[in-house]
Amino acid sequence: MQINLERLQQNLHDLNEIGYNPEDRGFYRIGFSDADMQGRQWLMERARSLELDTYMDGAGNVFFGTGARDQPMILMGSHIDTVPAGGYFDGSLGAMAALEVIETMREHYPQLDTPIWGVATAEEEGRFGGMLGAQAMSGKLTPDWLQEAHDADGVYLKDAMAAQGLDVMKALEAAIPPERLKAFVELHIEQGPVLFQKDLQIGVVEGISGVFKWIVHLKGKADHAGTAPMDMRSDAFMGLADFAHEIERIIAENGTDKSRITVGKVELKPGHPHTVPGEAIFTIVGRDMDNDIMTDLANACRRALSAIARKHRLMFEYEQVSWLAPKPCSSRLVDLIEQQTQHRGYSYLRMPSGAGHDTQFMSEVTDAGLIFIPSINGVSHAPDEWSHWRDVEAGANILLDTVQAISKA
Amino acid sequence: MQINLERLQQNLHDLNEIGYNPEDRGFYRIGFSDADMQGRQWLMERARSLELDTYMDGAGNVFFGTGARDQPMILMGSHIDTVPAGGYFDGSLGAMAALEVIETMREHYPQLDTPIWGVATAEEEGRFGGMLGAQAMSGKLTPDWLQEAHDADGVYLKDAMAAQGLDVMKALEAAIPPERLKAFVELHIEQGPVLFQKDLQIGVVEGISGVFKWIVHLKGKADHAGTAPMDMRSDAFMGLADFAHEIERIIAENGTDKSRITVGKVELKPGHPHTVPGEAIFTIVGRDMDNDIMTDLANACRRALSAIARKHRLMFEYEQVSWLAPKPCSSRLVDLIEQQTQHRGYSYLRMPSGAGHDTQFMSEVTDAGLIFIPSINGVSHAPDEWSHWRDVEAGANILLDTVQAISKA
Repeated sequence: MQINLERLQQNLHDLNEIGYNPEDRGFYRIGFSDADMQGRQWLMERARSLELDTYMDGAGNVFFGTGARDQPMILMGSHIDTVPAGGYFDGSLGAMAALEVIETMREHYPQLDTPIWGVATAEEEGRFGGMLGAQAMSGKLTPDWLQEAHDADGVYLKDAMAAQGLDVMKALEAAIPPERLKAFVELHIEQGPVLFQKDLQIGVVEGISGVFKWIVHLKGKADHAGTAPMDMRSDAFMGLADFAHEIERIIAENGTDKSRITVGKVELKPGHPHTVPGEAIFTIVGRDMDNDIMTDLANACRRALSAIARKHRLMFEYEQVSWLAPKPCSSRLVDLIEQQTQHRGYSYLRMPSGAGHDTQFMSEVTDAGLIFIPSINGVSHAPDEWSHWRDVEAGANILLDTVQAISKA
Repeated sequence: MQINLERLQQNLHDLNEIGYNPEDRGFYRIGFSDADMQGRQWLMERARSLELDTYMDGAGNVFFGTGARDQPMILMGSHIDTVPAGGYFDGSLGAMAALEVIETMREHYPQLDTPIWGVATAEEEGRFGGMLGAQAMSGKLTPDWLQEAHDADGVYLKDAMAAQGLDVMKALEAAIPPERLKAFVELHIEQGPVLFQKDLQIGVVEGISGVFKWIVHLKGKADHAGTAPMDMRSDAFMGLADFAHEIERIIAENGTDKSRITVGKVELKPGHPHTVPGEAIFTIVGRDMDNDIMTDLANACRRALSAIARKHRLMFEYEQVSWLAPKPCSSRLVDLIEQQTQHRGYSYLRMPSGAGHDTQFMSEVTDAGLIFIPSINGVSHAPDEWSHWRDVEAGANILLDTVQAISKA
């Protein structure tokens, strides 16, 4: 059994006519914008035209599917909202592949017994600071949060939803009882360089890696860069540079090939070319698939920074802004996806996801699996994002096979 | 012969009543402000009351002195303008010590033959981007520059001077013909930690160190910090950190104990905690007392950055914003000052000045010498700036001895 690539291409094309900006070639279906809602309306119409059942839940998630209502369903899907100037596949691939898989299965099994549904989730890209659709389905929302959530421009979620005729509090009713779910499977682009660089077709995702974020302060002394000899300085930047130099060792000693430590933001004070930096404020973001290894990495960062601070006569403080534990996918589904990939003879890698996905919330209420296809040059969240159609086809076929295998299990 | 510390203290005290801000305990005699001009008027009145000749030249420099007009003069001095919230001694020490040395010498030699003068220079702190007073005396001003010079708030030098009844173009007439000068000697606080840390009394300054300033661009790739494995990144910040790590080696291999290399300003793009920095823009400020060594340091920086850029797959560009060659003091005066210090039995160090001083311009038209006394904790340009009175006395005595030695030579 094969998915129909042309039909999948047509659906992606039709959806992506909505919110396209020819000037920057980017897609603008920002969560609860007019274009986003237009995409959801289009999808429900397309589903109806295919004689599928369809509805929108209280969080804006659009469901489409078929099969007996009294049995637990296999749910596939991903989001169809985008970041501003987003790419062609980020999110929409998973929703349109879900539609394609349902179509393919209906063609082969006219009397499909297991209920098989797709979902186009709402507001995954975090305009309002969460993953609204997946949080709603997995019952993770609170009335307080719904009332207070707002975007970077100060627009409240409740107002953005009201402008689209939606009552924010109805999102609480979108929770799906676990007993109604058999599994959740998401197909998504990798949004990273690994599969592309290694020339592999499929990523069998083992889970969403955990992440901690620190804000670190190193305080020294802001001396005149001319009058202060090198050995009499308390140069906060040199402390930061020494730490950066230790990152490779810290991962080699404590981490895995899935570990990441990133210094992404740096502020020096006073930040003047002729003044020795008296203060360095910077972020450390650490990741791994294992919570204990994350702890080891964090401890090693703290030890390194303490020693470096002593050496450079700096004061060292840090604030742990967040610690999100890894969210492993269902090992049953990981194995199942791997088996389907082997059967098809596709090259693949078991790998973590360093980015967040709807799957991370769905994994808390049901067996959840996540399939990656390569992103060319690892680009995402940009108009340049692209994936080869042969990989799109391969990914959709693995989604198809996985759903079949689950339905038979 | 000894200077009279009490009289020097009194003059410093009287001058520093002008422009003092009790709220932050800082001094505000910003160049050509009312307080600055008030300080200059006070100084001329004090000189007159001591029956010294006194006048203000076209640049606002206040001269005071005695002796035959037809012989080359020995000129001492420093500035009496301050940075905003400046310290008690920065500049004013050198001008008031000049006054004290003249007084002491007149007491001992009522028929002083060599003309001995002091000068309180104008606008040394660079409000208008130069060292106006010293540049004027050394004939380094141009009409264009005088017309265009303005401060950070957009106030033009010509308007600031006009508001004080001064014609900016008269500054051109302030140049002192070299044949009218026998020597220039400046006493100043170190504005750095070296003498204080080493517990030494006098700095015999060999010259103002040369300085180059680069703006460096390292360009890599702004990847998602979660999805990009460590070994697939082109992390511009890690390139910068690797360079910072090489600074110690670069100085050890190419520099001297007078070399300084400082990274004072850093900007990362996009500067987001969860994004691998795609771009790092930073300054390198390098210093040494030898122009060839500065060239070696700059070459070593360039080689290090080129190699690091290749390793991290970064693009490396730099702009040399400025290259100011070292300004050595007169070796005759350096030796003379050292001899006086040895005679007095003061502990001392031959050292460069990493900060700029009036001496650097005066050295281009006459034999110029610069004497440092310790700054407590190396602090300057702040209300916390202070020097011990015993060091003030020692420094003024060395100024006295040096002037005597010059006059006898």
